[in-house]
Amino acid sequence: MIKIAVDAMGGDYAPGEIVKGAVLGARESGTGIYLIGQQDKIKSELEGLDTAGLEIEVVHTDEFLVEGEQPAYALRTKRNASVALAVKLVREGKAQAAYSAGPTGGVIAAALGYLGMMEGISRPVIGGPFIGFAPKTVIMDVGGNVDVRPDQLLDFAIVGSVFASKLLDISNPSVAILSVGSEEGKGNEQVKNSWPIFKKSGLNFVGNVEGYDLLTGKANVIVCDGFVGNILVKFYEALGRVEAKWLEKVLTGKLPVKDVQEVVGSLLKMTNAADSTGGGPIWAVNGLVIKAHGRTRAEEFGRGIGVAKSFIEKDIVNSLRKELIAIKSRLNVTNV
Amino acid sequence: MIKIAVDAMGGDYAPGEIVKGAVLGARESGTGIYLIGQQDKIKSELEGLDTAGLEIEVVHTDEFLVEGEQPAYALRTKRNASVALAVKLVREGKAQAAYSAGPTGGVIAAALGYLGMMEGISRPVIGGPFIGFAPKTVIMDVGGNVDVRPDQLLDFAIVGSVFASKLLDISNPSVAILSVGSEEGKGNEQVKNSWPIFKKSGLNFVGNVEGYDLLTGKANVIVCDGFVGNILVKFYEALGRVEAKWLEKVLTGKLPVKDVQEVVGSLLKMTNAADSTGGGPIWAVNGLVIKAHGRTRAEEFGRGIGVAKSFIEKDIVNSLRKELIAIKSRLNVTNV
Repeated sequence: MIKIAVDAMGGDYAPGEIVKGAVLGARESGTGIYLIGQQDKIKSELEGLDTAGLEIEVVHTDEFLVEGEQPAYALRTKRNASVALAVKLVREGKAQAAYSAGPTGGVIAAALGYLGMMEGISRPVIGGPFIGFAPKTVIMDVGGNVDVRPDQLLDFAIVGSVFASKLLDISNPSVAILSVGSEEGKGNEQVKNSWPIFKKSGLNFVGNVEGYDLLTGKANVIVCDGFVGNILVKFYEALGRVEAKWLEKVLTGKLPVKDVQEVVGSLLKMTNAADSTGGGPIWAVNGLVIKAHGRTRAEEFGRGIGVAKSFIEKDIVNSLRKELIAIKSRLNVTNV
Repeated sequence: MIKIAVDAMGGDYAPGEIVKGAVLGARESGTGIYLIGQQDKIKSELEGLDTAGLEIEVVHTDEFLVEGEQPAYALRTKRNASVALAVKLVREGKAQAAYSAGPTGGVIAAALGYLGMMEGISRPVIGGPFIGFAPKTVIMDVGGNVDVRPDQLLDFAIVGSVFASKLLDISNPSVAILSVGSEEGKGNEQVKNSWPIFKKSGLNFVGNVEGYDLLTGKANVIVCDGFVGNILVKFYEALGRVEAKWLEKVLTGKLPVKDVQEVVGSLLKMTNAADSTGGGPIWAVNGLVIKAHGRTRAEEFGRGIGVAKSFIEKDIVNSLRKELIAIKSRLNVTNV
């Protein structure tokens, strides 16, 4: 049976919504669940829920990470942090995925520390087709890499290319660097310094793209540092919520309530790609670790359990590793 | 009579749409216009238009800037570039504003080179309330400053504060740095290094805000470098266009055509704040220079002439200079 190690203490609404979501997900997807965190709190949450027939195991720990801590330091001082124990269950083969809505830096640090990087990649990366209106455009990194070197940007491109080919069935995906203009000279130092290694990399590099092109399909994989990516994704989601409220107001009275809700609901779905899947994997570590939004509620978290299961069934981590080896051997890339 | 110096050769649809727009704007706002560029081309465009009673003067030059040039070098080698002549007319007091849809870098370089910076500010900046859904949130820089130092980020904050207080009537505007988390430790090196000087600046600094907060009103002025700002603004506008198409499709058949067009039109207006005003000023140079989008068409360009006129009537450049002096004298800022 597929088992997923859930960090019951991570997220703005932990443990309540996380425990509820895990139980929902377990029932819907037929997976077993470890719930890791403060036993008494988790058990009191479980008491109100229907867990009949589900395989749920509580793993007690008093320690957990909180927002605002320096991630690596926090993990060193809290060796039994709930997210650390979740990732260790993956390392030990007792769970096939770890799933946490805790602080991004902490989840990444745990994944990196306990599973290690895939060979030839220097840093974990978060990304995917986050823009619902451009479901075939992969954006990397939207996560924790805020100051990155050109060779790290290239790593994001490689992981993104694997994502595009393996999960989106795009052959020879085109790769671009996000910048302020499409010409070679346009961009900040990071972009300018990245061009030479992208050009000789052997990837299907098509140059710079601009903010517009997150939506135009001009490239299948668009890379940026995690500072830009994080701001973009959060802005996109917030904008979706604001627009949905605006649209509801504009349409009310013009359309039947049911139709208004349908239109508004589908706009929300299009602008919350990450929410609708419960989050995304930490790519390029040796195991499946999935980060959910801090403000994830039970329903989203439950859907995320299903997504985790599908990644496990597709053996996505090993596929990525094989592809990386294949790409790196084809490319003119000096490993870091 | 207020006169505006129009760079007739700048923009994707120059000179045709620019000349048409300038004539439109001159008629609507009652301003005089200099049209600067290749005389024969401009005159042949003017032939098809109704210019009766308008004060339009053509200033001939064969030189103009094109996308992809290194701006400072291009201006040195093309001393009579149309944008340069437009800005010089402002310097000479013959025009009260210069208006160009040419390459951003070139417009900024001309403004900087021929008008100079206001005292105490190191670089020109572009920004304003670009997010239509957050009309009281000023975002600086969305322009040409792609690699910026902390003291330059503070300059953006000062200009933004003046903008918010003078043009949006916000007293003691709150200022924040755009980052990946709201805590002091969260961000890239640029953000982390900026905190100390922001904290002691005397501005109403409220810390970091995240991508969400471009819409939440958590701060009146949000600063970022022009790399992030440019990507954000372009993404926002492109998203608006994509969403408008999507909404049109979803609503067609559900609502009368007229209502569909009204709803879609107002979404487009909300997401194209910059387009709807024809662009924005280059802030903190000693004169009014307004940059329009490269892909500006006649109608937008014409509206921009009206906006330029309103800035001239509000004496916005002198107001900004006075406020800057007042703020700088209050602040603990070491001038660069």
